[in-house]
Amino acid sequence: MAKKALWSGRFREPLSPAAFNFSRSINVDELLWREDIAGSLAHVEMLGAQQIISNTDAEKINRGLKSIAKELESGAFNFTDEMEDIHLAIEQRLIEKIGPTGGKLHTGRSRNDQVALDERLYLRSAIDELRSAIRKLQTALLDQSKTHLTTIMPGYTHLQRAQPVLLSHHLLAYVSMFGRDDERLAECAHRADLSPLGAAALAGTSYPLDRESVASALGFRGVVMNSIDAVSDRDHIIELVSHCSIIMMHLSRIAEELILWATREFGFVTMSDSVSTGSSIMPQKKNPDMAELVRGKTGRVYGDLFSLLTIMKALPLAYNRDMQEDKEPLFDAVKTTHASLGIMAEVIATNTYNAARMQSSIESDHLTATELADYLVRKGLPFRNAHEVTGKIVGYAEANNIALRAIDLKVLKTFSDLIEKDIYDSLDPERSIAMKATSGSTSVNEVKRQIKHWQKKLLHQ
Amino acid sequence: MAKKALWSGRFREPLSPAAFNFSRSINVDELLWREDIAGSLAHVEMLGAQQIISNTDAEKINRGLKSIAKELESGAFNFTDEMEDIHLAIEQRLIEKIGPTGGKLHTGRSRNDQVALDERLYLRSAIDELRSAIRKLQTALLDQSKTHLTTIMPGYTHLQRAQPVLLSHHLLAYVSMFGRDDERLAECAHRADLSPLGAAALAGTSYPLDRESVASALGFRGVVMNSIDAVSDRDHIIELVSHCSIIMMHLSRIAEELILWATREFGFVTMSDSVSTGSSIMPQKKNPDMAELVRGKTGRVYGDLFSLLTIMKALPLAYNRDMQEDKEPLFDAVKTTHASLGIMAEVIATNTYNAARMQSSIESDHLTATELADYLVRKGLPFRNAHEVTGKIVGYAEANNIALRAIDLKVLKTFSDLIEKDIYDSLDPERSIAMKATSGSTSVNEVKRQIKHWQKKLLHQ
Amino acid sequence: MAKKALWSGRFREPLSPAAFNFSRSINVDELLWREDIAGSLAHVEMLGAQQIISNTDAEKINRGLKSIAKELESGAFNFTDEMEDIHLAIEQRLIEKIGPTGGKLHTGRSRNDQVALDERLYLRSAIDELRSAIRKLQTALLDQSKTHLTTIMPGYTHLQRAQPVLLSHHLLAYVSMFGRDDERLAECAHRADLSPLGAAALAGTSYPLDRESVASALGFRGVVMNSIDAVSDRDHIIELVSHCSIIMMHLSRIAEELILWATREFGFVTMSDSVSTGSSIMPQKKNPDMAELVRGKTGRVYGDLFSLLTIMKALPLAYNRDMQEDKEPLFDAVKTTHASLGIMAEVIATNTYNAARMQSSIESDHLTATELADYLVRKGLPFRNAHEVTGKIVGYAEANNIALRAIDLKVLKTFSDLIEKDIYDSLDPERSIAMKATSGSTSVNEVKRQIKHWQKKLLHQ
Amino acid sequence: MAKKALWSGRFREPLSPAAFNFSRSINVDELLWREDIAGSLAHVEMLGAQQIISNTDAEKINRGLKSIAKELESGAFNFTDEMEDIHLAIEQRLIEKIGPTGGKLHTGRSRNDQVALDERLYLRSAIDELRSAIRKLQTALLDQSKTHLTTIMPGYTHLQRAQPVLLSHHLLAYVSMFGRDDERLAECAHRADLSPLGAAALAGTSYPLDRESVASALGFRGVVMNSIDAVSDRDHIIELVSHCSIIMMHLSRIAEELILWATREFGFVTMSDSVSTGSSIMPQKKNPDMAELVRGKTGRVYGDLFSLLTIMKALPLAYNRDMQEDKEPLFDAVKTTHASLGIMAEVIATNTYNAARMQSSIESDHLTATELADYLVRKGLPFRNAHEVTGKIVGYAEANNIALRAIDLKVLKTFSDLIEKDIYDSLDPERSIAMKATSGSTSVNEVKRQIKHWQKKLLHQ
Repeated sequence: MAKKALWSGRFREPLSPAAFNFSRSINVDELLWREDIAGSLAHVEMLGAQQIISNTDAEKINRGLKSIAKELESGAFNFTDEMEDIHLAIEQRLIEKIGPTGGKLHTGRSRNDQVALDERLYLRSAIDELRSAIRKLQTALLDQSKTHLTTIMPGYTHLQRAQPVLLSHHLLAYVSMFGRDDERLAECAHRADLSPLGAAALAGTSYPLDRESVASALGFRGVVMNSIDAVSDRDHIIELVSHCSIIMMHLSRIAEELILWATREFGFVTMSDSVSTGSSIMPQKKNPDMAELVRGKTGRVYGDLFSLLTIMKALPLAYNRDMQEDKEPLFDAVKTTHASLGIMAEVIATNTYNAARMQSSIESDHLTATELADYLVRKGLPFRNAHEVTGKIVGYAEANNIALRAIDLKVLKTFSDLIEKDIYDSLDPERSIAMKATSGSTSVNEVKRQIKHWQKKLLHQ
Repeated sequence: MAKKALWSGRFREPLSPAAFNFSRSINVDELLWREDIAGSLAHVEMLGAQQIISNTDAEKINRGLKSIAKELESGAFNFTDEMEDIHLAIEQRLIEKIGPTGGKLHTGRSRNDQVALDERLYLRSAIDELRSAIRKLQTALLDQSKTHLTTIMPGYTHLQRAQPVLLSHHLLAYVSMFGRDDERLAECAHRADLSPLGAAALAGTSYPLDRESVASALGFRGVVMNSIDAVSDRDHIIELVSHCSIIMMHLSRIAEELILWATREFGFVTMSDSVSTGSSIMPQKKNPDMAELVRGKTGRVYGDLFSLLTIMKALPLAYNRDMQEDKEPLFDAVKTTHASLGIMAEVIATNTYNAARMQSSIESDHLTATELADYLVRKGLPFRNAHEVTGKIVGYAEANNIALRAIDLKVLKTFSDLIEKDIYDSLDPERSIAMKATSGSTSVNEVKRQIKHWQKKLLHQ
Repeated sequence: MAKKALWSGRFREPLSPAAFNFSRSINVDELLWREDIAGSLAHVEMLGAQQIISNTDAEKINRGLKSIAKELESGAFNFTDEMEDIHLAIEQRLIEKIGPTGGKLHTGRSRNDQVALDERLYLRSAIDELRSAIRKLQTALLDQSKTHLTTIMPGYTHLQRAQPVLLSHHLLAYVSMFGRDDERLAECAHRADLSPLGAAALAGTSYPLDRESVASALGFRGVVMNSIDAVSDRDHIIELVSHCSIIMMHLSRIAEELILWATREFGFVTMSDSVSTGSSIMPQKKNPDMAELVRGKTGRVYGDLFSLLTIMKALPLAYNRDMQEDKEPLFDAVKTTHASLGIMAEVIATNTYNAARMQSSIESDHLTATELADYLVRKGLPFRNAHEVTGKIVGYAEANNIALRAIDLKVLKTFSDLIEKDIYDSLDPERSIAMKATSGSTSVNEVKRQIKHWQKKLLHQ
Repeated sequence: MAKKALWSGRFREPLSPAAFNFSRSINVDELLWREDIAGSLAHVEMLGAQQIISNTDAEKINRGLKSIAKELESGAFNFTDEMEDIHLAIEQRLIEKIGPTGGKLHTGRSRNDQVALDERLYLRSAIDELRSAIRKLQTALLDQSKTHLTTIMPGYTHLQRAQPVLLSHHLLAYVSMFGRDDERLAECAHRADLSPLGAAALAGTSYPLDRESVASALGFRGVVMNSIDAVSDRDHIIELVSHCSIIMMHLSRIAEELILWATREFGFVTMSDSVSTGSSIMPQKKNPDMAELVRGKTGRVYGDLFSLLTIMKALPLAYNRDMQEDKEPLFDAVKTTHASLGIMAEVIATNTYNAARMQSSIESDHLTATELADYLVRKGLPFRNAHEVTGKIVGYAEANNIALRAIDLKVLKTFSDLIEKDIYDSLDPERSIAMKATSGSTSVNEVKRQIKHWQKKLLHQ
């Protein structure tokens, strides 16, 4: 049950046990203790500097907070069932430790701007960690790209074999995706990099708080311009979780591919035993659980985003208690995304890609049909007609269960007499790749250019 | 770190620590220990009865499981960082306790059908508890309806005062909503009331398991008909969380109203101090936090639903590891909905509705304008013209800042000479309510009929 | 631009063009014209019968409405930019056609109960059509099950080959899923099968409307009990779209499988040219577009559900204009789900399942490993140890690239001397299926039982 | 029904009517005709310049495309039921108009990169329009802020009156929110500002396409670096719709406030008749429909976002047909957000804010209680104790139904003898605002600073 609450002066009846339990948030927001104490330290230092409280009091509070930080760090801090939230828990403990002077900490501050501050500090370090996890995953992908620079695989559209591409090129597509994720996170961090402290409940305060110095002490680039906005805004949280959703979407795509590629049917990849699990009943099973879990956890982060958007819908200004519910989805999305990036980096790094199997998938199929059409175009046919002629040749190949480049020239000529012996060059997968002429294509040189780009980029971050 | 896993016969390398941590679920699925042991007890009894294992072994396992249940109940069960999930944790502990015989428990069973069973057992008791919480809330609403049978308030559309209604009638609208929720839950429970056990991994098994007797021992009405469906279906979970979402939607509506009604501006309700909280900075504040939190938690349950739908999208049959992620949203939705129903019942029961304030809101406004139009219709005007005439009279009243029934008859007659002295009857809010003639309307008799209906209904459940 | 609105008596300024365009809904709700006219016909008949309007007027209105229905049916009805919604458009046209008497149609009715009625009528026929589409799909699946009663395929978990199952059994898992969908829809239709008409704006009305006779004329089983609930409830719409979401989830699973099975790598299914498309650039491509689109459209219906849940969140009673936004997601979800069920039935019916390819997938793999373990159990080993021994044998088979049943008995005996010559029976896929002993398993007899169940069920609906 | 499709060379059977209808997208993607033709013009110009086709052919195609553009612009273009999508419709028409040469347009191009291009071009102009609509709304808010620079209103937390604030300050909080929206959109546009053309199906092409010159002709800042990424990425679409969701969230908050403020109970705002509507049954009603619709449409855009996230989940590279479903949610989100911004600007601009009513709301309540606590702090009490003392004084005021500043000094002194006569200064709302000392607070000077900031900002955009 709750002790007499710090805010209860005007109340005649205590909060009922059910209401207290329903509303307490400490089991969630305790995660913010570091941010909370950092904010309080900066606040109290400023209170002293501005002579709002005496230097003696400021130092006393400072020492008290630091000793509470040690208790929290070591696990000695006694979380009890009576505590409502991390802010009041620390304030209460401060008063226990240093007496009524502790009650001066909250001067010119409200939980409204306090929690807004804690969340911005949390977001800053969360983004740092997410970006670092992204770079690790990009590095794993880049390393495999370098290893498999010239490994040829079937490129797919509609999950049907389409054209030969380099495995390295395919993996680099993901490096590009995560590169955009990294950019988005950086921009979100920059936008949120403003201190809300000093907004107090919503209107600012009559104490001569120096908001800028507190912001600067906490490493912010400035302060939030409007005090009502400062306490009612949760944009940066939704924005971050949106970005996490896109990251998870990217991860779900690579996860899906790994699950496919690890099937007996594809056989393109062998995952390490160290990231695979077995079955409780079927002794032969080796399952790509990490990829499946990443794919599944995508739903979790999407759910977090939807929770946040729903929570914030149609809330009048300024703070509403609904906003307390923003923390779990935020923490969950960050934790899930971070862990998923991490495990995916490990999976990619320990994957064995089966080049021979990939190669043989190309041989058996008509992946160079587009080259055949392009050949006809070079001989003068409009592309649309060349496409149709080629379609018919493919139909013939299918019906006769024969590879395109195994069709006799005489037969080919019955479809179009523009076809000459040099057609067989176009039908060779390796040559098809070598012939790619456009920037960003799957030719070895273009892939090398991408690798160089990302190596430089990852080095400089 | 993980011990050698029970499924690891074919593996050469152990799961990496990161992979183990990413995939272990025991911190979530430990909640299912009661269901897991109940299922195992029924399974092992049947194994004995069918002579698949000896009766001695069956009894040994039975005793072992019961003693593990006691450990779990008392908190003596030692959850360690090496445990993967609740199923293997219990099996491992069983082997520790009774030796290799414990390894016979999993005969003819897979974690796939085991977890499907656990979830169905969980769902059954979860729905029982949700339904009971719904009835408590309905009872609270019904009690207030009886207290306020004849209290008149402004009914709203577009949040603009529309017509006088009885507070009891308004509250009973919620009783109806929650009545539908109760029905939906009952149907979901019935649909899910089938045992999946015996499906094994996905194909059934060559052991002569008696699925029906296990089902019956566990209180199910039957067995799932198709073994692949049995292990790959999560419909009932999504269905339950859909229903929870609608419940939360209903709760969010009543919460929104309470927040509005508790404003100084409306003043229709005074919430008990026992469910209100104060501000850390503003000493005069008394906030409707419980209602705000319920409204906020709506987003949380919606998010759970979206997680589940996303997780299950496009999963090929049968079990995929993604499905492990179904538990947290399920548990969270049930817990959140249950707690929200509970706190709302407490809030409603302890509310003081301010009848005088409601009454005065009606006096000052033009809530009986529809009656005026209907009066003109009874005098022969088509409704559409009567509406227009009344609209003009309202315009006059607004411009002159006067109540409809304070307008002089002579003035009224300038708008339509069909108006006679008896018009003032129609403009009286109480008479307006008394004149309601349709079934389901806000007349006292009709409201009494609703109250009787629900009293009977709640009694019989 | 809007004409003078029928509701504009008290307004001094017309709606601005932007506001009119932003709020008009006729381009969406025109779809409801049949329901709107059916409701009006029943309403006006009752007005006459109750002598609220004269029989002459009632007949005049009846004839007017019927002639408007003809205009709408034939396309002669002139939809103009001045029309706000379908209700007012029809009323206005009625007044044009039959003069001021038309203005009597709206007696004792509000657009609030009118639109609630229209939506319930729509929902009833929408559910009928959805259920009929479900049955067609179930029939297509059932037909293929009968054709492929004994076709063996690898059953999958984690998309890894797990155990041999019958293709028929696999397809019947979907028949079960859609069977539950059908049940859910039926329950939703039953719950919504109540007439809201007579609730008027929210409070009922002083006209002696006979709600029950109107309900009965429109084929409802009764009336909504509480007038406020009648106009503010959209549960049935959310419930229906929830059920559509689960249907789409099921469809997305079968779609995913078809996309996989149609790959060159799996090769389990050949889709008909009549449901496949090609590429604008790659002449050899044959793509499973229908399955991809169904999978993609799943997202669309999920989005519809979340729109609806968000719209209804925290709306105070009774009607709010937000609720106008319920129609597009409802219509879209119904249309998309219906079309997806239809195309999937066509895809399934025209699929060629490649039994030989499925069979050969089983040969090459260790799908009977569970049987091997079960064999050891029958010889006395606890299952957990049998699992481990089998895991090691699989490891040996993998390392030596040999099928389980190709391993020499002498070699097998080095893993466990419980193994005898009869082991080779257990390792035969067909025998493995034949040995399945549990109800609901993949044995031919059990599958036949399922087929019989569904044939009977589909016949009786 | 479909004509023989341009891609159908290898097919033996035409697409079934149902399949054609299920998969055709022209009723949605016709919206992209301008972008499609712009892209084709740039592509064909480059084909000529690179001598991939002859200059004569290039010019012929150019003229053909331009004349088709005219047909489309004027409505003369004949959309038929046989058309599949806008790309093929235009190509087909080109061949009709200029003969087989038209078939050369698609040289080195696939619909995969073509549609990716069209969407990026669309996104660019969509963002331009959204940003311009944001600025209009900001301007409307800023204008009202200037008008109401010194109007005092109760600031709210938990929808309970909290502290006096300036209406201008409150409105500027929204200007800040929309300022962040504008930033996010700009960053999204910049990130997406790369041409995918030249990626062809997924691998690039052997034609010597000059991707950079095409990009430059179309006004892009560069090309997408990886061809597989170019055709499989839809990040920018999800990102844009995420940003739209946040915009709608902001709009839903201001909409909710307007609905509240327009109630009889609050009475803070009178909306113009030109943006209000009436009731079909209740002649006195004047409803804030625009605000309600904006609030409701929030759900719609959220739904669009979740559609997109779901669609893209777990899609293997590169193009999959599921991605066709990205267009409707994109177009819908853009259109809805744009219209909502527009109508809200009109609503804000035409609002009459009732300063007197706001002022009187402050008088009657204890909004300066925080000032009282701060007063006690300045007299030496720790804040926490000052809060408690003030809470008790508020309790006294509530119980005696008296305003804080009407309490006699003698009575006040019974709570704390630190209270002196100067306390009454602190209890005056206007002085309370004037005393605000922190940057970003609600003091007039600070609000002026914000106004200046935004005026400058809006001028320079």
